[in-house]
Amino acid sequence: MAKSEAKELFKEFKIQSVSEFFRRNAAMLGYTGKVRSLTTIIHEAVTNALDACEEAGILPYVRVEIEELGKEHYKIIVEDNGPGIPEKFITHVFGKMLAGTKAHRNIQSRGQQGIGISGAVMFAQMTSGKATRVITSTGDDVTLEAWVMIDVDKNEGKVVRKIRHKNREGWRGTRIEMEVKDVRYIRSKQGPYWYLKLTAIANPHAHIELIEPDGKLIVFPRGSEEIPDPPEEMKPHPRGVITDDIFRMAKKTRRNSIKRFLVGEFSRISDQKVDEIVRYMAALRLIKSVEEDKKREQLYERLANGDVKLILKGFGKRGKAVLRETSKIMEKPPEKLTWHEAEEIIEAFKYIKFLAPPTSGLRPIGDENIERGLVNILSPEFVTSLTRPPKVYRGGIPFQVEVGLAFGGNLTGFDILRYANRVPLLFDAGSCVTTSAVKSVEWKRYKVDNLEDAPLVVFVNVISVHVPYTSTGKQSIASESEIYEEIRLALMEAGRRLKRYLSGKHKKLHQVKRRKTLEKYVNEVAQALSILIEKPPEEIRTHFVNLIERRFEEAAQSEGGA
Amino acid sequence: MAKSEAKELFKEFKIQSVSEFFRRNAAMLGYTGKVRSLTTIIHEAVTNALDACEEAGILPYVRVEIEELGKEHYKIIVEDNGPGIPEKFITHVFGKMLAGTKAHRNIQSRGQQGIGISGAVMFAQMTSGKATRVITSTGDDVTLEAWVMIDVDKNEGKVVRKIRHKNREGWRGTRIEMEVKDVRYIRSKQGPYWYLKLTAIANPHAHIELIEPDGKLIVFPRGSEEIPDPPEEMKPHPRGVITDDIFRMAKKTRRNSIKRFLVGEFSRISDQKVDEIVRYMAALRLIKSVEEDKKREQLYERLANGDVKLILKGFGKRGKAVLRETSKIMEKPPEKLTWHEAEEIIEAFKYIKFLAPPTSGLRPIGDENIERGLVNILSPEFVTSLTRPPKVYRGGIPFQVEVGLAFGGNLTGFDILRYANRVPLLFDAGSCVTTSAVKSVEWKRYKVDNLEDAPLVVFVNVISVHVPYTSTGKQSIASESEIYEEIRLALMEAGRRLKRYLSGKHKKLHQVKRRKTLEKYVNEVAQALSILIEKPPEEIRTHFVNLIERRFEEAAQSEGGA
Repeated sequence: MAKSEAKELFKEFKIQSVSEFFRRNAAMLGYTGKVRSLTTIIHEAVTNALDACEEAGILPYVRVEIEELGKEHYKIIVEDNGPGIPEKFITHVFGKMLAGTKAHRNIQSRGQQGIGISGAVMFAQMTSGKATRVITSTGDDVTLEAWVMIDVDKNEGKVVRKIRHKNREGWRGTRIEMEVKDVRYIRSKQGPYWYLKLTAIANPHAHIELIEPDGKLIVFPRGSEEIPDPPEEMKPHPRGVITDDIFRMAKKTRRNSIKRFLVGEFSRISDQKVDEIVRYMAALRLIKSVEEDKKREQLYERLANGDVKLILKGFGKRGKAVLRETSKIMEKPPEKLTWHEAEEIIEAFKYIKFLAPPTSGLRPIGDENIERGLVNILSPEFVTSLTRPPKVYRGGIPFQVEVGLAFGGNLTGFDILRYANRVPLLFDAGSCVTTSAVKSVEWKRYKVDNLEDAPLVVFVNVISVHVPYTSTGKQSIASESEIYEEIRLALMEAGRRLKRYLSGKHKKLHQVKRRKTLEKYVNEVAQALSILIEKPPEEIRTHFVNLIERRFEEAAQSEGGA
Repeated sequence: MAKSEAKELFKEFKIQSVSEFFRRNAAMLGYTGKVRSLTTIIHEAVTNALDACEEAGILPYVRVEIEELGKEHYKIIVEDNGPGIPEKFITHVFGKMLAGTKAHRNIQSRGQQGIGISGAVMFAQMTSGKATRVITSTGDDVTLEAWVMIDVDKNEGKVVRKIRHKNREGWRGTRIEMEVKDVRYIRSKQGPYWYLKLTAIANPHAHIELIEPDGKLIVFPRGSEEIPDPPEEMKPHPRGVITDDIFRMAKKTRRNSIKRFLVGEFSRISDQKVDEIVRYMAALRLIKSVEEDKKREQLYERLANGDVKLILKGFGKRGKAVLRETSKIMEKPPEKLTWHEAEEIIEAFKYIKFLAPPTSGLRPIGDENIERGLVNILSPEFVTSLTRPPKVYRGGIPFQVEVGLAFGGNLTGFDILRYANRVPLLFDAGSCVTTSAVKSVEWKRYKVDNLEDAPLVVFVNVISVHVPYTSTGKQSIASESEIYEEIRLALMEAGRRLKRYLSGKHKKLHQVKRRKTLEKYVNEVAQALSILIEKPPEEIRTHFVNLIERRFEEAAQSEGGA
């Protein structure tokens, strides 16, 4: 009976495509709620536009149009001046999930997985039944117009209609038009207007426009003409990899020895470092062979102290033999690397001091640009910002934190603007490390008495090749302790600056008041003195006024500006 | 320049497999933290075992062994007496993500996506480099032993070694052995011991054993010999589908007309209902053609009131013509259904009254079984439980809520045991609807004064064909208002029962005290009275004792038992 049972049960066995999976679980991609779903679509399109411009070294121009076609029914148009998409990649870019230019490279970019824009095309198709219209040109003599749909069962894009136009004006860029239902446009803090506003703050080099459903045009103008450097691919750091990474990389590399593989495909591994790795591998082999527990533990401790050469010596001839063995590993072709050897290499990595990973690939926004962005869009009375030096988390993944503070002026209340690689995070604030770090700071120390009511905006941008998001929706950053600490340190420094400004402001207000009081008495005092010392009151008055002027000028200078 | 740029950029275009995606994002599958990762592996294996037994109608026997092989290095063995796995499905079951028997069927089951066990195999391989050993037989004369690995780049399983044994003893079941590193066994509330304990409570028909790393055997014995009915496939309810669902189903069906398709593949659609759908489609077409806003709105309102026949009549000949048009749609072959027609059908669904979806496929644990489970495993002093009638959320997705309360006895503090389809949820309690519902109940009303310190365990099981999880990790249920309300209602009823019990207990304690006080005075009073009424004190004493006995018996009877 059971046998036929098993056969029976397995008749139902089927393979799902990844599109089908995300169709059933669209919420995991951010398609949950009518407002958020609309924002997610715009986020995906704008993210792609900005990434493409950055990679191609183009100052971005992004235009978003939202047309209302009916109740909870919109056409969304996003146009950019990016590098354009070659014809043969159109179905893959817009119709195939897990396909893209970023996932397999170690670069800092807004998008990563190659799911986003295909997800948007799928959501449009799921709700309106319509294909996404793509108009693109790489700047050559053809502009391509294509209507793309997703074959969900196969996770494949298909062009249902295609027209080639002559590109007379040399236009270059991409325009996509999606028809979507069951979404809603409102000007809330989770809607497209706010999303684009926050995007503009963190991307002052971008010109961003929005046409709202009622026809209103909103322009977030470019605040800087500097093109950010294109992202740079970074080799993994020895401390940021696990055995399986090395093992899989070794199977795929084209280098001809394990040594060349290690030196060529990791950062901070030189020929000398390979010798060190070999010594540590040998020492570890020898230590493991020691039977007496106490002695073994002592040797481990000495190894941790860097006594590797002495330990090898201590094993005499056997030490030399094992060292020869381990150094032979390095000469093998990489595909011959065994799992066990990969484990030994990873174990050796833990004992060896490496330089911190290179951070040349990280692309902060920069202090000036953050301040420009905040001033440009929020018009505060005071602004400051700073970029911390790059750090690593989990031992080997580089990241960097930038913060900004904007205070007073047009601001009316407290807010945290959260970003990851310049992308605004609008949802799941509660579980985000930026929120907990901001809340952990003792703002009272910095003259902000009642945080929740203060006219203060806190800007936090976490950049990394691998931002540790808490879920597929990418709206919240995990609480890695190193990231938490960096945000706190940055905010404390910015807080001190705010305090200086507020102290100065308080003093100035105080002095203006004192000066007014003094001046009020000058006339009376001058009158009285003129009788006593027999000089004309005008002269005495002028003397006093000059005295007061000088006194306050000195005071202002000795304190420095705010 | 830009053209070559685009070509240049797209040289990096690559396609990722779904395994590669989840390898990079293992945290999304629950592989995060050393304790949780171990629990996740056991969860996946046990879930598969219980689901398979349930589908095959077998009383499950599940044995979990955790062997410590080294520091943070374990062998995990999970064996069941399920239906076994036919040879040709082994690579798919253990090595291919998004492949399985459940995702495409509308059934209530613990697993769903066909990711879980492949994810466990991948995690084992990623951390230890080892293949997963599978021993399985469907009960025929062969037992198959196979070592399975995942080709992550291709999302394919491969059997690296295979042995066929003679199955002399007619054994049937599946045993898997995985070697895992970077995990840790501890007896915490997020570890395997607690996970299996909670699983045993919600599955009293299962015999579950655990051998801990120190060799200790823990048995959670079967509390019930009843085999739960196998899950039943449920057709979707008209209110639970969107346009895209109907449109896609119509392209795939083998029925020969749209009418037969609707009647055959949805629940609660009869031939008569199809006529009603046709009438509503016609009426909606006619109403949309009315130009005057006010009149149109009035007609919509009348339609919502069910005046569809009168509305059609009101349009006279045109009404009849449009009705003929729409009824012709029903005779078309389903693959000819247009998106627009599918939208019209969905719109009509919103105006039509349907019976609530059938709930015959839902498989609650049942009051008695919950109580058995709670008593069996927790030894409380009081227990109660109840299963609410099935309800629907989002208009068409059936679900059902069961709760249990255990109080006093061996319990030492407050706890919530959360389940979805009998699977314990150990993580992300904060964002789970069960937590918020339990906390929203005013427990003081039910004589639980200080909830956090009360010896009270609250059990909540939410069952559905489609449990709305908040993320891929499936550890937290989204706050659908209907589910929230059902949990609250169930808890309030259970709370009233607890109150009755506690009231009775208080009264009894009070009476025992009073009785003791009375009895203390009986001797003295008897002595005194014996002098006054000149009867022997023994007689008077007996009289009083009888009186007290009778009085308390009456009181107890009139109040009923607790």
